[in-house]
Amino acid sequence: MMSNVIIGVDLGGTRLRTAALNRDLQILERFETLTHAQEGPDATIARMKQMITQVLPKDGSKVDGIGISAPGPANPMTGVIVAPPNLPGWHNVRLVDILRAEFDLPVYLGNDANVAALAEVIRGAAQGYRHAIYITVSTGIGGGVISDGRMLLGKEGLAAEVGHMVMVADGGHVSSLEKEAAGPALARKAVARIQAGEKSIIVDIVQGDLSQVSGKVIGNAATAGDTLAIDVIKRGGWLLGLGIVTLLHVFNPEIIVLGGGVTNVGDLLFVPMREAIEKYALDSSYWRDLKIVRSALGEDVSIFGAAALVVTQGGQADVRSVMAKLDAE
Amino acid sequence: MMSNVIIGVDLGGTRLRTAALNRDLQILERFETLTHAQEGPDATIARMKQMITQVLPKDGSKVDGIGISAPGPANPMTGVIVAPPNLPGWHNVRLVDILRAEFDLPVYLGNDANVAALAEVIRGAAQGYRHAIYITVSTGIGGGVISDGRMLLGKEGLAAEVGHMVMVADGGHVSSLEKEAAGPALARKAVARIQAGEKSIIVDIVQGDLSQVSGKVIGNAATAGDTLAIDVIKRGGWLLGLGIVTLLHVFNPEIIVLGGGVTNVGDLLFVPMREAIEKYALDSSYWRDLKIVRSALGEDVSIFGAAALVVTQGGQADVRSVMAKLDAE
Repeated sequence: MMSNVIIGVDLGGTRLRTAALNRDLQILERFETLTHAQEGPDATIARMKQMITQVLPKDGSKVDGIGISAPGPANPMTGVIVAPPNLPGWHNVRLVDILRAEFDLPVYLGNDANVAALAEVIRGAAQGYRHAIYITVSTGIGGGVISDGRMLLGKEGLAAEVGHMVMVADGGHVSSLEKEAAGPALARKAVARIQAGEKSIIVDIVQGDLSQVSGKVIGNAATAGDTLAIDVIKRGGWLLGLGIVTLLHVFNPEIIVLGGGVTNVGDLLFVPMREAIEKYALDSSYWRDLKIVRSALGEDVSIFGAAALVVTQGGQADVRSVMAKLDAE
Repeated sequence: MMSNVIIGVDLGGTRLRTAALNRDLQILERFETLTHAQEGPDATIARMKQMITQVLPKDGSKVDGIGISAPGPANPMTGVIVAPPNLPGWHNVRLVDILRAEFDLPVYLGNDANVAALAEVIRGAAQGYRHAIYITVSTGIGGGVISDGRMLLGKEGLAAEVGHMVMVADGGHVSSLEKEAAGPALARKAVARIQAGEKSIIVDIVQGDLSQVSGKVIGNAATAGDTLAIDVIKRGGWLLGLGIVTLLHVFNPEIIVLGGGVTNVGDLLFVPMREAIEKYALDSSYWRDLKIVRSALGEDVSIFGAAALVVTQGGQADVRSVMAKLDAE
């Protein structure tokens, strides 16, 4: 018996990926190129169509649909890529309509962090949970929320932007979680302290060129035992913990899944994060049974998430019914 | 034809109310007494049972169920009132089990701010909206979230505690929206400035006894034109606006409904609130079509909300299907 196939498309700022998956979200075939973002949407969409055709089944298997993971802002209701900072020239591109016209298949669009959350509850680190929050900490902070088994989108699919929660509102100063705890924020804080005279091996790592300091550099310095780098990451973890405190009070989740490059430093970040959660949550019932885990799906999370959009009809079907169906097959 | 009846119970810190409503959530009959919170749960529950019996239909009409609005923390999944600060002696009281055993009817429990949100989307200021947030600003700040037509509860019904979002995380200082913008916070800030030497008619209003300064006193002073009071409310409105910025990024709602005594000052609070929203939201698409309205249900909001729990099966049925059913009757 031939089984149905799902097409997943990961439109990233750096890489463009397509894959064919079965309904268990196992990758059957995949294709990957650089995105060449500067070539603009028309050329990229032409390649995307070719790459989808390449992974379409050749044996007559039925295709359930195409799911696309794209950088935000993207509107899953209208299927429009709005204006992602890392895809120059993409302004209000009706990608879902374009692919639907080309392939005559159901097409779903989701932003990368939202679909990552979906992938993690269906086949990743949060498998089986109904109340889950995915947070990715890298050059920005993005998020996805699974609320009672369904992907949280809001009115126009702009929900779950956890990096833009206000964390500092004091006097005239206002700042968000992303501005305080993402990679560039950690780099900025380290550079400011170095420029104020503190010693750090960061200077040696970047060979004196402080414009090269990044979240990754801070992570390497911290892992090597650099006091300044450790201190900066500690504050980042503490702020991330306070951001999670807000999310606990707002969503009362069962599990938090953390991904993104900054989380690779591990306990240097997680220990102060957990301390902030336990100190500042209203009540221990918010964190007593809370699981905080690392993302399980690695760099393929967007492909899984794109395919998960198809099996959940854009994230709107309850993941419990979807998984029961997967398990029954 | 006899129509079905719903029993709503509002267990407040000050007042205990029961009512019989029809499925359109019109109040048919009601009963109200003081709660006498200090008498403890057994005596209050005994009176509650009597008051429910008094509003039960005498003509043989069928009763759909009993809904209870209670102060948080209350667990809608287990039907347990956990330990509300304004109901001394109530610790883990299994109120749903007790009433179910007494009346042999479906019984639903919700916290007062959550059920207020439900009431507002079914029969109040947010009628017909699918993505709505209710915020009440009085001695505390509470909230309720309707997410894609369903009441947001989270794992144990502890979600939507919007007053406990972290708003100030700077250096060692951490503070929540409630600690910065609820009535007592406004009073505390005004008193501190008066004690530091600023002039204000607040001193005359409380006849020199600064322990009597409350959110209501600040509101009265501001309405009378007092500069200090206006300034304190302005900062409260600005912080409330920043709290709403977080909620917009997290939920992308269509409408915000504001209730609670502090909101009675009107534009003195709402103008700086709206300014903060428009200045700090990531993109105008978060607020361009956003409606911000006052609560429409007044002091009966908890009775309506309690009854709404019954028609939505504890907030878990989609409000669209519930309202279609109401309209068809």
